[in-house]
Amino acid sequence: MRTIPVKTTSANYPVFIGRNLLAQIPRKLGLHKSARNAFILTSTAIWALWGKKFLASFPKDQQPTVLFLPAGERYKRLNQIERLASELATAGADRSSLLIAFGGGIIGDLAGFLAAIYMRGIDYLQVPTTLLAQVDSSVGGKTGVNLASGKNLIGSFHHPRAVFADIDVLQTLPDRELRAGLFESVKAGIIRDTALFRFMEQNSVAILARDPTALERVIVASIRMKANIVAIDERESSLRMILNFGHTLGHAIEAATGYNRLLHGEAIAWGMLAALQIALARSTVAPDQAQRIERTILDYGPLPAFRTTPAKLLDAAGRDKKNRAGTRRFILPKDIGNAIVVEDVTEAELRSAIDWTLTRARRGFTER
Amino acid sequence: MRTIPVKTTSANYPVFIGRNLLAQIPRKLGLHKSARNAFILTSTAIWALWGKKFLASFPKDQQPTVLFLPAGERYKRLNQIERLASELATAGADRSSLLIAFGGGIIGDLAGFLAAIYMRGIDYLQVPTTLLAQVDSSVGGKTGVNLASGKNLIGSFHHPRAVFADIDVLQTLPDRELRAGLFESVKAGIIRDTALFRFMEQNSVAILARDPTALERVIVASIRMKANIVAIDERESSLRMILNFGHTLGHAIEAATGYNRLLHGEAIAWGMLAALQIALARSTVAPDQAQRIERTILDYGPLPAFRTTPAKLLDAAGRDKKNRAGTRRFILPKDIGNAIVVEDVTEAELRSAIDWTLTRARRGFTER
Repeated sequence: MRTIPVKTTSANYPVFIGRNLLAQIPRKLGLHKSARNAFILTSTAIWALWGKKFLASFPKDQQPTVLFLPAGERYKRLNQIERLASELATAGADRSSLLIAFGGGIIGDLAGFLAAIYMRGIDYLQVPTTLLAQVDSSVGGKTGVNLASGKNLIGSFHHPRAVFADIDVLQTLPDRELRAGLFESVKAGIIRDTALFRFMEQNSVAILARDPTALERVIVASIRMKANIVAIDERESSLRMILNFGHTLGHAIEAATGYNRLLHGEAIAWGMLAALQIALARSTVAPDQAQRIERTILDYGPLPAFRTTPAKLLDAAGRDKKNRAGTRRFILPKDIGNAIVVEDVTEAELRSAIDWTLTRARRGFTER
Repeated sequence: MRTIPVKTTSANYPVFIGRNLLAQIPRKLGLHKSARNAFILTSTAIWALWGKKFLASFPKDQQPTVLFLPAGERYKRLNQIERLASELATAGADRSSLLIAFGGGIIGDLAGFLAAIYMRGIDYLQVPTTLLAQVDSSVGGKTGVNLASGKNLIGSFHHPRAVFADIDVLQTLPDRELRAGLFESVKAGIIRDTALFRFMEQNSVAILARDPTALERVIVASIRMKANIVAIDERESSLRMILNFGHTLGHAIEAATGYNRLLHGEAIAWGMLAALQIALARSTVAPDQAQRIERTILDYGPLPAFRTTPAKLLDAAGRDKKNRAGTRRFILPKDIGNAIVVEDVTEAELRSAIDWTLTRARRGFTER
């Protein structure tokens, strides 16, 4: 087991990465020593696979209450927060209660937000069950839900007490979800970790075969990169922005396709390729580096097809909350392991990148 | 104009108290120097009385967007947050936008919470238009909405950038609302400010006649008391709890009567009288002091009648979020200007105080 500390100005907590972690959580929380009212938010699919094992690790007299969120981005909304908060209240949850987010990114984001605002804030744990949630959303304290008009427009910064990234749980992850998560690790390599990028460039076969050692190396490096950035810039004033590489158009693609066509990581992969075109056109990045970036993203593909109009993407990209007072912000790769924030991307550049993307999106995009 | 600084570990902002403040807000914000996307959340009633005057103070090219919340506790809910957040998004609000809460406590609490969670937090101002909001809810950073099962069960700590308590605005306040707010100032005197209590004990006629000098003195002292407590104990770990004097049963009364029979301040007044009976029975407070406290509360009455059952009140009091893991916490007056937190109030003591209260609540309670 590896432990990565996350240290920010407002919180300080460990991320545990390794095998068979699920069975160790109650002990690590000290539940065998002092009682605590615990609640688990999960999905029926995850619970069917792992619920029995997870529950068995809790003391018999301290079995947690289990709450469920239906699967799908369309349930990441305030009306579910209302329902779940009422269930917490009815079950007697108070300020000393603990909420455990046990699922993918949607459950982690929503449970974190529920914990942030229930009685003005209770403790919570992240126990992410998808690779994407393990390497990205479970670390950093960003929590939230969607509005009809945009993703994550409602939320809070609220750090978990600890994160448990259990590699064994990934063995039941659908292949498409594994790939979607790996796109975020490729992103981590591109923007800040040359060694991680090179490892992923050279070991895609082992990684995609879920070799535990290879997976652990990718997860540890991805989380370390994110913990490092969050420690320096908790509130996304500047450095943390580079984590949004691929997100400006990625979010727009998700919005324009109704949040149900692509997985988040797949949309981000499309967004990274689009941003790469802007960087190439500006000569921000050298052509050979751009080629390695594109090829490595595609190694973890395919990128599924989707259809929308340039107008819809333009409109959705303009509403992204990363934009301040009208400027159009993009994160562009510079070298492998290095990215920059630019604020002056013109509508023409954006249109050109959108055209490039939509042409390829008609049939999906694979390396050959 | 008086200025009281609020200094906490997480924020530092001024509370302005005085006459004709409404006209000075945009200048104090520096809006004449640098543009800012401003939004006002208010009620149609307040806006009809003061909207024209408020808008006139904004530069012509920086008129704010006005949003409305229907009057009543039943609109202090997440579905209104969802609607208003969507309106903000549609109107182009971004992270640099400013939200101005212009209304009573419900608008202040809900607008503060909306600002806390819109795009994970934007700036907001409190411009309270009721006495209760001026002396209590606008200072301290507590924001939130209700669940069906309890008041303020959802919320955040999010401090405003500034508070503007305009005494002129109180001239249009209904008499009943004025009295309800004065109960909170009496509370401030009882728990921590002997001089304020004595001033209110001796000057109820001038205060109820809305003499601006008398009102300003009450407001300044009440806010200073609260700012002082919040500075020492922002998150209500201990000292801030004493602000909840009257709230354990006050909240229960509000819940048991469906939040529509009594104003918040009136419920708190009933709750203070009930807590006083517990303190008397325990000899926590001397009988002559208790008598002065009761008489002064009634000076700002009447306390309106209400009906409910002891069982309902007991149940609602048990669910109050001030209770931790089953203990029953009460704030009890000790001397005038001094209160203590007790954790061991028995069900028998609580039942006795509830009986005392419900007997008087049948017809309402006035001094003679």
